[in-house]
Amino acid sequence: MPVVVVDVVLKPEISDPQGQAVLGALGRLGHAGVRSVRQGKHFVLDVEGEPDEAELRQIAETLLANPVIEDVELHLPTD
Amino acid sequence: MPVVVVDVVLKPEISDPQGQAVLGALGRLGHAGVRSVRQGKHFVLDVEGEPDEAELRQIAETLLANPVIEDVELHLPTD
Repeated sequence: MPVVVVDVVLKPEISDPQGQAVLGALGRLGHAGVRSVRQGKHFVLDVEGEPDEAELRQIAETLLANPVIEDVELHLPTD
Repeated sequence: MPVVVVDVVLKPEISDPQGQAVLGALGRLGHAGVRSVRQGKHFVLDVEGEPDEAELRQIAETLLANPVIEDVELHLPTD
C-alpha cells in the first residue's frame, strides 16, 4: 500500500517554544554544534490505490496543519 | 548551515490515539482512501560544521525520542 508522508512545520516567523526547550537542553548537555531546533509533526498515511496528489495536499493543508501558523511538506511515494 | 532532520515515530506495536483520531476524521469527511494514519514528531536541526552522525544519532535516540516506545529516522544532508 503506498505510503505518503506529511511533515508539518511551523512557519519561520512563528516562535517554537518546544524547539527552544530542546535547543537549551542540548546546549546544557554539551552539544554546542546544534544551533537551532524546530519541532513539527510527522504524519505517515497508508493510502489505497494510486495516491491522489490534489486530495492529499488538501488533506495536509486543511486537516493536518493549521495554515495560519504552519507549512506543509507532502512526500508522495517515489516508486 | 547543514540541516539535519530527525523523524520520531511510534513503534508499530504502540497504539496511536492521535493518528486514530485523524483517521476517523478523514473517514467522516469522505477521504476513504486513507487506510492508516500514524502521527510522529519532526525535528529540524541546524548544525554548525560537518554533521557528526554518531553524535546526532545519540541526540536523536536519547534526547528527541523515547526509545521504549519510539523509533528514530535520521536524515543527514545529502550534499
